[in-house]
Amino acid sequence: MLPFARVSIIGLGLLGSSIAKAVRAAMPTVRLTGHDANPEHAETARTLKLCDDVTDTAGAAVIDADLVILCVPVGAMGAVAAQIADDLPAEAIVSDVGSSKASVLAALTSALPHHVVIPAHPVAGTERSGPEAGFSTLFQGRWCILTPPEGVDPNKINQLIAFWERLGATVEVMDAAHHDLVLAITSHLPHLIAYTIVGTASDLESVTRSEVIKYSAGGFRDFTRIAASDPTMWRDVFLNNKEAVLEMLQRFSEDLTALQRAIRWGDGDALFDLFSKTRAIRRSIIEEGQDDARPDFGREH
Amino acid sequence: MLPFARVSIIGLGLLGSSIAKAVRAAMPTVRLTGHDANPEHAETARTLKLCDDVTDTAGAAVIDADLVILCVPVGAMGAVAAQIADDLPAEAIVSDVGSSKASVLAALTSALPHHVVIPAHPVAGTERSGPEAGFSTLFQGRWCILTPPEGVDPNKINQLIAFWERLGATVEVMDAAHHDLVLAITSHLPHLIAYTIVGTASDLESVTRSEVIKYSAGGFRDFTRIAASDPTMWRDVFLNNKEAVLEMLQRFSEDLTALQRAIRWGDGDALFDLFSKTRAIRRSIIEEGQDDARPDFGREH
Repeated sequence: MLPFARVSIIGLGLLGSSIAKAVRAAMPTVRLTGHDANPEHAETARTLKLCDDVTDTAGAAVIDADLVILCVPVGAMGAVAAQIADDLPAEAIVSDVGSSKASVLAALTSALPHHVVIPAHPVAGTERSGPEAGFSTLFQGRWCILTPPEGVDPNKINQLIAFWERLGATVEVMDAAHHDLVLAITSHLPHLIAYTIVGTASDLESVTRSEVIKYSAGGFRDFTRIAASDPTMWRDVFLNNKEAVLEMLQRFSEDLTALQRAIRWGDGDALFDLFSKTRAIRRSIIEEGQDDARPDFGREH
Repeated sequence: MLPFARVSIIGLGLLGSSIAKAVRAAMPTVRLTGHDANPEHAETARTLKLCDDVTDTAGAAVIDADLVILCVPVGAMGAVAAQIADDLPAEAIVSDVGSSKASVLAALTSALPHHVVIPAHPVAGTERSGPEAGFSTLFQGRWCILTPPEGVDPNKINQLIAFWERLGATVEVMDAAHHDLVLAITSHLPHLIAYTIVGTASDLESVTRSEVIKYSAGGFRDFTRIAASDPTMWRDVFLNNKEAVLEMLQRFSEDLTALQRAIRWGDGDALFDLFSKTRAIRRSIIEEGQDDARPDFGREH
């Protein structure tokens, strides 16, 4: 039996369009309704036939939904939830795909106090944005984290778990605060650092931008991929997971200062010790299927 | 006509073995001689038939060479140059592939004051090490930077340019100090930051290592690739390009502090402005053929 018969997706960017395609592939009889506040994206979604119906208003998209998934920047969650509140069936489960969870949980439960809200975060993506960027296998082999508030009916949680498993994900349940700490180090800080170094490299006087681009294969180009991610989405993540990001950033800065000192004083042993231990983590990530085992991520040579 | 008839490679790791394979593919009549101080690597190189001959001593490898390429960590260049000094033909050109150039130029010219020394840096690599990691197309479409000292015969420089062009690289000539500044931002700082964040993530108490690995697809895994690079090689780079690395690191830290402040005070516009401008650099890198145009570096999904 299908976990849900009528699924509504609000926001048809990379994540929303990938969910639509993955649902089509895994559960072809599900009735899919979508909405995007950007008329161009809505038009593209219609052309691509991502959903059975793309509605002009968010409310119309949820009117008979079993499951509503909000795929909008985390700063917009509360406003979108308020827009759909009047049209939302009493039994519908409301979820999302946002990268920070405590703030989203607060925003959704506040806007929809009488509904079942189960925030979710599929840890998957690419640097592309918009309805044309989605693909049906995005969630295959990836983790999806649910952060239900206390007191939610376990059957509802299991229904949402079954949904994500159908899309190829493995589901973990944890509390929102812990999610935000874990993702601060595995996702948010890496993005912040990548954006920073790409900015630093753009602003140099002694090295031209053309030189930065030509010699980027020395390592810099790796950082430019995640620094090409959606600006609105990431602005909202940092504004909504401030405490955890600042905590991780503080630790990173301390560690970087220690390395800076080792370089200044020529402490080769300290450098060698760190550089030797970091290989093990890469090995584990590949063993657990969370990255491509081929050298250089499988880039073409 | 071939730029060189007898090429000697000292150090048969990723770079040395890739040069051997690329020479075999592009200039099959060149006589290739190799040496590696690690007996296991020498044995592997023999089994893989990377060279016509793998010698037990560095001196024996260069005895009739036209071109000698030192492919060892930059901290070992001076010692290796001293080892070959007595056996090196008077007309041989000595080059290398090290990632820092001012220190290498000084070490090589000091150990070999009567020879033509033309340091080189092919800006190419993967996170793998050792003689089995090499492949013949590593230099295709990549840049190779030569940093000849003043007064070198231009014909000798042109000979080395022709050699690298045969291996598929595009060659640029610049002075060693400028090379070190450019690579500090495009390669050395990115490696330092990647090593640091992987170390920071390993040392947390609030987030387990298993969680870091599971949720690494949120961005962290990108950093683990270059943090899996050879520890000895990278220790030597930082010890030998100290000034330029510290200069770039200082700028990066200032920029990171400014972002930290923007997050703390909720300055969404400052975040959005930076996050919007970094996309352009990625686009240029792809347009200039320095990275894979496919989303997610072409990783398998």
